[in-house]
Amino acid sequence: MSLGKGWFTEVYEQGGSAFSLKIKGKVHEYQSRFQKIEVYETETYGYLMVIDGCTMVSTRENFFYHEMIAHPVLFTHPRPRRVLIIGGGDCGTLREVLKHPGVELAQQVDIDEGVTRAAEQYFPELCASNNDPRAELYFEDGIKWAAEADAGFYDIIIVDGTDPVGPGEGLFNEAFYRSCVRALGKDGLLVQQTESPLYHMKLLNDVRLAMKSAGFTGVHTLTFPQPIYPSGWWTATIATRSGAITGGREQDILKKPFETVYYNLDMHRAALAQPEFMKRELKG
Amino acid sequence: MSLGKGWFTEVYEQGGSAFSLKIKGKVHEYQSRFQKIEVYETETYGYLMVIDGCTMVSTRENFFYHEMIAHPVLFTHPRPRRVLIIGGGDCGTLREVLKHPGVELAQQVDIDEGVTRAAEQYFPELCASNNDPRAELYFEDGIKWAAEADAGFYDIIIVDGTDPVGPGEGLFNEAFYRSCVRALGKDGLLVQQTESPLYHMKLLNDVRLAMKSAGFTGVHTLTFPQPIYPSGWWTATIATRSGAITGGREQDILKKPFETVYYNLDMHRAALAQPEFMKRELKG
Repeated sequence: MSLGKGWFTEVYEQGGSAFSLKIKGKVHEYQSRFQKIEVYETETYGYLMVIDGCTMVSTRENFFYHEMIAHPVLFTHPRPRRVLIIGGGDCGTLREVLKHPGVELAQQVDIDEGVTRAAEQYFPELCASNNDPRAELYFEDGIKWAAEADAGFYDIIIVDGTDPVGPGEGLFNEAFYRSCVRALGKDGLLVQQTESPLYHMKLLNDVRLAMKSAGFTGVHTLTFPQPIYPSGWWTATIATRSGAITGGREQDILKKPFETVYYNLDMHRAALAQPEFMKRELKG
Repeated sequence: MSLGKGWFTEVYEQGGSAFSLKIKGKVHEYQSRFQKIEVYETETYGYLMVIDGCTMVSTRENFFYHEMIAHPVLFTHPRPRRVLIIGGGDCGTLREVLKHPGVELAQQVDIDEGVTRAAEQYFPELCASNNDPRAELYFEDGIKWAAEADAGFYDIIIVDGTDPVGPGEGLFNEAFYRSCVRALGKDGLLVQQTESPLYHMKLLNDVRLAMKSAGFTGVHTLTFPQPIYPSGWWTATIATRSGAITGGREQDILKKPFETVYYNLDMHRAALAQPEFMKRELKG
């Protein structure tokens, strides 16, 4: 369903809502073993990548998501050196992670090489750090990767997957989180995109409770704008292996040696703030 | 243009985007002297009021807007007693204002009685305080009202108007702000909805500069989610007659004697936080 020729529309049936972008045309379509990857050239948002009909990333506003999935968790860990990104095939999260000079290794494990190949062509700016000597790109099953990782190897695991349907489904359960707990060092942190607080409170609570059951000691849900996703408002949930999540390394955030569009110390704190209904309804 | 039978769509041409809600049907249509007012019954958002084709308010998510246009400014003024609402015909802002026990008078001046009549019928919860003895509803021109107000009479002016086209246009310029400065007491504050930071930075800067030229000494732009408006992310700008806007009456916010869905002390602070690009680009 769409507004007609010249528009791309994502209908979010469960929410009874739809979001559309005006397009010049479709420039890429590839049915991988896992999913259908499309890229549109839009009138005002640059390029738009769509997977199985759901908007994933646009040139214009991916900064919200990529900055907010990467920097809050990296500035929460006391000294993040080894980072695992599960999913993240568009490479935008990898680029943000590698802006941190202390990171020595960033492994990106996405099951679908097709996403990265499309990103290289249409979102080259997101792939700018793919050849960084600290970057390693694998096209394998992230669930298996986490299960087989050396115990305590990673400082941070970033779960940058699709919605909890299709290949992303296995990234939202206790068995997976248990692998992550094992693969993380003692100060280890995990962060995961966890959908919209307006539409997905049940999922959010299921995730938070599963994280706690798996052995994480604290969880905290961040919110930030995400214009092309259903409701325009999104979350990431951070889980810690020890203690609770209170704030970031504020002095380091103030002195961060790289540019951002959205993220800064004020927005780090703002993202941690919990709206009244989330305080009432969040579990875990 | 729409997704077809069973959907309401607002196309935001300038942004190259559109937002749609699944509807059961149109339940109200009235062409007033000023604008076309429609109400739809939606599948998942309750009722939806649309003015001249633009979404105004829905049952499900109006709490973001109404709480964030009212409570931050009321909790910033040291002792707000007399409040003027210009626009606000759906009465949701009036309801939030009257939750503050210290408010002695809240005047709502909307040019179009048709909006309030539709709200009474389809959004009765927003009109719950219309018969409060402290409430006065007028259906008159708010620009003229502000110009003719007694000097120093109001503590707070809330400009809860439509987009800066049609009847709302005259609410976005220096002449109007000059009237407001005159009508406000020495600690007086004005707040105005100021569109999306993703789409309307020029308007935001024009407004902020006009407020300063008109005699306001400080301005600060708040951000908050607004799912049914273009980009899903919205602003309100507060202007003060003396000093600068730093924070709210935090102890009073913690002890607020009423319920909210979104607003609390954490979200007050979060709304004041400025994303990096806004820090760089905002003027005034």
